[in-house]
Amino acid sequence: MMKIKQITDFKIGDKEFFSKTVSESDVYLYAGITGDLAPHHVNADYAKGTRFKERIAHGLLIAGIMSSALTKLVAPGAVTLAHEMHFLAPVYFGDTVYAEVEVKEIDMEKRTLLLRTIVRNQRGVVVLDGTALEKFPKAA
Amino acid sequence: MMKIKQITDFKIGDKEFFSKTVSESDVYLYAGITGDLAPHHVNADYAKGTRFKERIAHGLLIAGIMSSALTKLVAPGAVTLAHEMHFLAPVYFGDTVYAEVEVKEIDMEKRTLLLRTIVRNQRGVVVLDGTALEKFPKAA
Repeated sequence: MMKIKQITDFKIGDKEFFSKTVSESDVYLYAGITGDLAPHHVNADYAKGTRFKERIAHGLLIAGIMSSALTKLVAPGAVTLAHEMHFLAPVYFGDTVYAEVEVKEIDMEKRTLLLRTIVRNQRGVVVLDGTALEKFPKAA
Repeated sequence: MMKIKQITDFKIGDKEFFSKTVSESDVYLYAGITGDLAPHHVNADYAKGTRFKERIAHGLLIAGIMSSALTKLVAPGAVTLAHEMHFLAPVYFGDTVYAEVEVKEIDMEKRTLLLRTIVRNQRGVVVLDGTALEKFPKAA
């Protein structure tokens, strides 16, 4: 059994958090699952010649880790309708990312929440900044 | 050795494709990597009571599979600056998704490509519709 969340459970400014150290295995498993084996993610030799100098995590993997904070806040209950995100700095293997999601707008008519989604690294640098739109079904 | 792509290699209308049958293991591994274990993804008993009736894949996992087409088109060379996406229909375990990315705008000044990113299921239903902004470094 679990408590299903309703849109009436939320108010502007509600927040949730999640953090994780991003490992090589995270990136390699993610690459295999998605099929996205771009060399800046999985080829250290190639990465040396890029401005990043080392392999970096997929931006959408970092977004997925951010979604973990989203899930802590709105699930079970809501599903995601839309995401919009900007990748502002690279995440290296071994970096620790801190995701924070915050309710910015509540539309009771449409039963949607608009959330700001921010991920910072261990030095406080914002690596991802975006928004997510969450929708709640009609209460049973 | 590999050929590094430059923005001058692209023209409006260039396309790339990737398809994959989404498995339970994809969703479960992705859930473990990201930490996003929302019950509509990993709890079949809970999912029965939702409007989806069954567990569904994470929207951002489908976006990651779409990125595989993006990588085929622009890597090695470009990195993603931004994504914007709408999740229009659920993807069930066993569904086959077909991703298509297409160059819509080219900004030679900023060395960016704007791409339309669409993912359809095996019945042709659009499950994800969005855009991605890709940036190329200065030519060496």
